[in-house]
Amino acid sequence: MADEFSLISRYFSACGIAGEDTLLGVGDDCALLTPAAGEVLAVTTDTLLADVHFPRNSPARYIAQRALAVNLSDIAAVGATPRWFQLALTTPTADPSWLSEFSAGLNAMANQFNCTLVGGDTTRGPLTITITLMGTVPPDKALKRSGANPGDSIFVSGSLGDGAGGLASIEGRLSAAREDAVYLEEHFWQPKPRISEGLEIRTFASAAIDISDGLLADLGHIAKASQVGALLELDKLPLSRALQRAASVQQGRAWALAGGDDYALCFTVPADRVAHCQRLIDGGLLEATSIGVIEEGAGVRCVDEDGQTVEVECSGYKHF
Amino acid sequence: MADEFSLISRYFSACGIAGEDTLLGVGDDCALLTPAAGEVLAVTTDTLLADVHFPRNSPARYIAQRALAVNLSDIAAVGATPRWFQLALTTPTADPSWLSEFSAGLNAMANQFNCTLVGGDTTRGPLTITITLMGTVPPDKALKRSGANPGDSIFVSGSLGDGAGGLASIEGRLSAAREDAVYLEEHFWQPKPRISEGLEIRTFASAAIDISDGLLADLGHIAKASQVGALLELDKLPLSRALQRAASVQQGRAWALAGGDDYALCFTVPADRVAHCQRLIDGGLLEATSIGVIEEGAGVRCVDEDGQTVEVECSGYKHF
Repeated sequence: MADEFSLISRYFSACGIAGEDTLLGVGDDCALLTPAAGEVLAVTTDTLLADVHFPRNSPARYIAQRALAVNLSDIAAVGATPRWFQLALTTPTADPSWLSEFSAGLNAMANQFNCTLVGGDTTRGPLTITITLMGTVPPDKALKRSGANPGDSIFVSGSLGDGAGGLASIEGRLSAAREDAVYLEEHFWQPKPRISEGLEIRTFASAAIDISDGLLADLGHIAKASQVGALLELDKLPLSRALQRAASVQQGRAWALAGGDDYALCFTVPADRVAHCQRLIDGGLLEATSIGVIEEGAGVRCVDEDGQTVEVECSGYKHF
Repeated sequence: MADEFSLISRYFSACGIAGEDTLLGVGDDCALLTPAAGEVLAVTTDTLLADVHFPRNSPARYIAQRALAVNLSDIAAVGATPRWFQLALTTPTADPSWLSEFSAGLNAMANQFNCTLVGGDTTRGPLTITITLMGTVPPDKALKRSGANPGDSIFVSGSLGDGAGGLASIEGRLSAAREDAVYLEEHFWQPKPRISEGLEIRTFASAAIDISDGLLADLGHIAKASQVGALLELDKLPLSRALQRAASVQQGRAWALAGGDDYALCFTVPADRVAHCQRLIDGGLLEATSIGVIEEGAGVRCVDEDGQTVEVECSGYKHF
């Protein structure tokens, strides 16, 4: 059996390419990093547990990609550029083929988004992955949950519900045509962090959040932090063609609203910037859909195509 | 049962006092932090698992203190000032009294060392605590493992072996007089991170490491990173009076060499700075002991009081 130190050096010494902003990476007591002058540091941490956040026997490559992707999604939501990450990996065994697959997945995702593994900890125990990802952003460009105002339009990037549909397909709760199942499951395994969208919208959005717990819960966080209400038009929810084919409209909307695992961005745009945002969308520079409007009040209110209020259960995934 | 979000806000919204360098702390997708101009970021991550790193039924306050302390020790080893940390807490239940005790311990340690909880993740599962701690240090003052040269003197801060002796006492493997048992067990539960020592030695030390896996293993890391050998004089190992009373010299030395859990600093000092270092020690400004010398070669060689080479098993705690 390999010891902890050779494990680290063998599988994790080079995930992502270290740039000049990394003075010291894996292998000392601390990593030493140089944030760009004039930028602030954006930091996020997410833990993935076997059988809570993914099926235990999932391919190690997918687990790694997902663990980094969910953190990248948080960095995207504040409009930051990802830079470095720490990996705390707890595994029951030091299985070389599993570790090799895991590090390959991590490496691919790190390279795709230009961030570098700079340190962490490996321990033996129940399979758990905690990543802390650091990015940088000019302080006046950082997007927060708290900036929405009545009259702002609400947008989401990409489509919603595919993550929950993918997990349902993986777990055998949804039977879809093969092509659609592949699309949905890929969406679950390889969520696309919206880094480029975050960098685009940070110049004009008033608030943003990434949708990890479901649109209702996460838009609710914007409403609460901004001390406003939100009006959501259910017929505008962007559902992918695969999801529309594989599930009923009702099921698709339910997953879009509360299924979680989408890692799209939800953001608000002041009325005088909506035309600019729409031009980016029309020009193919931004993939986003207008789904409602911020209003006075509190909480999230849903209306159907006739403008009638619809009661929907507003809850994200709860661990406790 | 409380949900994840109210858990976070109730117990973890205010551990440590946020300074002006924290633009945004707990509660958004990312924390937003401002490292001091001209300083680099030092980042470390340590995971503590129940029944691996501490007995499962340990007081929650102690577990929290220990989890932060082991990270502070890594920050100390590079000569950095602690600033912010992220907490990934996995617990089997959301027991309010446990969480309250845990956050009290974390808060006490954070306040003592002037660092602030700025974010993290809470999940349900086997008790696991991962902390990522960030500090700052002027780039030319950061201590690395790789800076030792033949002729440098080797020092350790504080005493060695108390952490392992404390764990033995807690687990009933060591019976000591009550006063000594209290001293040793406190040393295990509340390791004293050597932040002030790190800030002191960074002006003259050539290399440093914190002793988490035992002196032999950690001095071995300095030797390997610096491509040198180390000569250790066993009779100079600083053992506390409590440990000397509670255990045989042989047992005390064994714990000092390979017991781990001491979180003292081991550092090397160039010959022309040793007198300066010794003046600090003599003046009570630095608690440290000279224990050997860096030499050409590789690995760690131990000698007894007669200068005879002694074979000792050179291994730290290994998870795999």
